[in-house]
Formats: sequence, C-alpha cells, structure tokens
Amino acid sequence: MHLFTDSYQFELEFSVRDYECDLQGIVNNAVYLNYFEHTRHTFLLSKNIDFAKLHTEGIDLIIARIEVDYKLSLKSGDRFIVRVNMFPEGPLRMIFEQYIFNLPDQKLVAQTRVTGVGIKNGRPMKLDAIHGFSGLL
Amino acid sequence: MHLFTDSYQFELEFSVRDYECDLQGIVNNAVYLNYFEHTRHTFLLSKNIDFAKLHTEGIDLIIARIEVDYKLSLKSGDRFIVRVNMFPEGPLRMIFEQYIFNLPDQKLVAQTRVTGVGIKNGRPMKLDAIHGFSGLL
Amino acid sequence: MHLFTDSYQFELEFSVRDYECDLQGIVNNAVYLNYFEHTRHTFLLSKNIDFAKLHTEGIDLIIARIEVDYKLSLKSGDRFIVRVNMFPEGPLRMIFEQYIFNLPDQKLVAQTRVTGVGIKNGRPMKLDAIHGFSGLL
Amino acid sequence: MHLFTDSYQFELEFSVRDYECDLQGIVNNAVYLNYFEHTRHTFLLSKNIDFAKLHTEGIDLIIARIEVDYKLSLKSGDRFIVRVNMFPEGPLRMIFEQYIFNLPDQKLVAQTRVTGVGIKNGRPMKLDAIHGFSGLL
Repeated sequence: MHLFTDSYQFELEFSVRDYECDLQGIVNNAVYLNYFEHTRHTFLLSKNIDFAKLHTEGIDLIIARIEVDYKLSLKSGDRFIVRVNMFPEGPLRMIFEQYIFNLPDQKLVAQTRVTGVGIKNGRPMKLDAIHGFSGLL
Repeated sequence: MHLFTDSYQFELEFSVRDYECDLQGIVNNAVYLNYFEHTRHTFLLSKNIDFAKLHTEGIDLIIARIEVDYKLSLKSGDRFIVRVNMFPEGPLRMIFEQYIFNLPDQKLVAQTRVTGVGIKNGRPMKLDAIHGFSGLL
Repeated sequence: MHLFTDSYQFELEFSVRDYECDLQGIVNNAVYLNYFEHTRHTFLLSKNIDFAKLHTEGIDLIIARIEVDYKLSLKSGDRFIVRVNMFPEGPLRMIFEQYIFNLPDQKLVAQTRVTGVGIKNGRPMKLDAIHGFSGLL
Repeated sequence: MHLFTDSYQFELEFSVRDYECDLQGIVNNAVYLNYFEHTRHTFLLSKNIDFAKLHTEGIDLIIARIEVDYKLSLKSGDRFIVRVNMFPEGPLRMIFEQYIFNLPDQKLVAQTRVTGVGIKNGRPMKLDAIHGFSGLL
C-alpha cells in the first residue's frame, strides 16, 4: 500500500454516530467501509459521476477487492476526516486509496486500497466509456 | 395494539449477531426493525410474494407507519423468535402485528404494528391487484 | 401525535448515504431510527448529557416505545434536516418529538414520537437524578 | 492469500436479508464484513471464547487488517455458507481465512484474510494468555 502523502483529490469530514459503535464501545470494523464508500461516492458526485444514476442506466460500479489497515479505534464523539486519491489501473480498474485521520490530532486511524470496476450487462466495461470518468483518468 | 395470542401465521428464529449490539451492549433499537422486516419478507415469500421481484415489476411495498414497544433488551448470544400475523385494513393497507419472544423463556421482548401499502407509479394501489395477496386477504 | 410547530429545541442536517438505501432505491425504514437517534444524542450532548459516558457510569438511556409515520421516501443524494423537541412525561419518562424535513423544500418526510427512560442497575430511575437533565425538564 | 481447501474448522449458513442489499440490488460490500464477523464469533463461541464476555473482562479482540476479494454478488433470496480456518501468526496475531460459497452451487462468492489481535489495557497481549485460545493455537 502506498504511503499517504499531503496531497489528496477529495476529503470529507464525519462524526462518529453512537449506533455505529459495537459492544466494545468502538466503531465496528464494517462501518469503516461505509465511511470509505460514502466518501468515494461524494467524491465521484463532485465529478458528476452519480453512482445511483449510473445504476438506473444499467452501469454498476462494484468493488473487486478491498484491503483495510486499522491503526486506531474510533469511538463515540470522535470527529475524523476521510481523504481519497483515485487513479486508473489498466483500462478496466480504478484504484481508490483512502485514509481516515482523527480530528483535531490528524493521526492516521485507518487506510484502505479499494479496487473498483464498472459492470454493464454483467460484463466489465472500459472505464473511459463511463460518462465523467474520461476526465478523471 | 392488540394483545398477542397463541396463534400466528408465521414465525422465524434468529440469533443476535454481535455487530447488532451498540455501545450499551444491547441490540440497537433500529435493528429490531431489521428483524421485523426480514420476518415479514420471509413470510410473504412463503406465500409467493417476492419483495425484490415486485420492485423489478414496478411495485413497491412500503411502510406508512410503525409502532414498536420495547419490553426487554436483547444482548450478545440471545436467541429469539419473531412471530407475525397479517390482515388487511381496507383495500389499500395491510397490517402486520409482530412479536419477538426470547428463547427458551418465551418472554415478550418487543412487539410492533406495521402499516404497509403498495405503490405503483408513485400512487397507492389496491392490494388485491398484487399477485399473491388476494389469497392472503 | 402533536402537530409540528415552527419552534424546535435542536436541529441537525444530514445527507443520505448510498449504503443507507435498500434494493427499492430508497432509504430503508430502519435507517430513519438511526437518523432520529443520532439527532437525539447530538442534542443531549449539546446539553452536556453524554449517552456513552452515562453508560460507563452505569446509567443507560433506553427506548421504551417508538412511533414513526413515514410520509415521503428519502433517496440517494437527498439532503434533509431532523428537528427535535423534548419534554418530560412524569418523573420517569422523556418524550422526544422529531421531524424530518427534506431540503431545500422543507416538506415533511417523517415524524416520530420516542419514549425514553433511564435505567440504573436494571431499574428505572428518576430523570432529574441524571446529571444535566434537571435543567432540561 | 491461500487457496481455499476442502477442510475447514467451522462453517455457518446464512440467507441474504433484503435490508442488506443496497440500491444496486446486491448485498452492500460492508455487509460481507458482518457475515465474516458473525461467523468468526460463532466459531470462537463454539470453542468457549466469548467475544462479549471477554470485553467485560477488559480484553478486546480487534481487527488489525482485513483483505477481501469479491468474486460474485449476493442478492435477495440467496443462501450461502461461510467457512473459516484460523491459525496463529506469532504470539500476538491470529489469522482467519474465510470463504463464502453460494448455495446450492458452492461457487466462491468472496474470500477474506483477517488479522486479529487481543488488547488489554490498550496494549497487545499474548493470545495464549486468553482463556480458550491455548487449545486452539
């Protein structure tokens, strides 16, 4: 996994919601994937790539692989920021590198590398054929 | 809300999953709606009413109102059973009365009354026009 | 349920996150309870009543009853605001009346009435014995 | 990641619940982590290692790293089985290799490799000091 840098294409701030914590009093491991996804979708939407609208057009953006390193635990009351960089890997795959930093300390809480693909009629499609992606790649 | 009886149209057994518990160590209040929904959909499927398939045909079964009384708290390791009765309320509404009992004690944990409606093209539709419902109502 | 008014004790703005939508393309009915809870807890925290901290002190705020009327469906991309009023009902119960309005239209999406109680050592406790509540009630 | 074999230490069967599907009509990527966790905890409980009870004793089992490969999409109505193998990696880390196969076809849906650690008083602890683990490792 790449080392994180000081340069990101997008970032989004969150607060932990109490229902996201499990019986250990920390945010459940699966919820981090929710945070990562919401940040990716908001980033894409800022580039006029609408995950929900694409689905109605028969194009599904799906995840092929995800790796997450958990460094610190988020808990009730915590604020944090999720940062993302995206780049293509060949004509069919997009890679999202995402980082969660707590606030105001800016310590690394978790990082992920997500491999996404576009699917149309059940088959992988070239990303530059998806409206909006060509400008990103 | 009706008193619960000894006669139910359907029942489904569950175990609490640890991720469903929140920082108080008990199942979060919203998760009970997941349990109730999964029981309703499994009940309807047993009557050949397929929630997901109806959506692809342009018919959405949605909830207009829900009331829940929480009597006991479910926690890690608990097993329980969800029981359901359904009946029509006029031509447009179906009522689900559902009860959660813990196991093996059979004590009442929660009960709900859910009002459901069918929507087609954004408008309420008569339930007996939905394939499978006429036999139920 | 009371009619909603123009006066609220607290409000919090949200955006729908795509993972909160179910296969019908609308926010799942249980997720509204997440929105309502997060608004209540943020409201209480603004009054120095900390849900998570109370738990570590042996006091659990739990829900005894909830009623929700669903008026409109939230979907991907929607923004909305949750407003809340709270008042006591006798010495043991607090009532939260909450309303979701979509943005920017301010149409009523859903409303709820939540009955909360405080529990210590498994028994209901007087709310004015909970630090922070006496100023609210 | 290891190739999956025909030999597993534990398996648990599930059905997709409709609320686990997102607006694409498939199970959301984060929900797979719920399936994996519930299978791990049920496996550990079968060995008398109780995730919730350990927390009350001041020991938290947490995830340091997770890798997931998504091969096929689960959707409404699908049944599947989650299989797990666990082995130690040094004195501090346990590795869970988990596989989801759909039913009745037994096709591989997803696989994960999860690195877990035990934490006591905020510090990593040797796994063989946790009651129940010594027999497993």
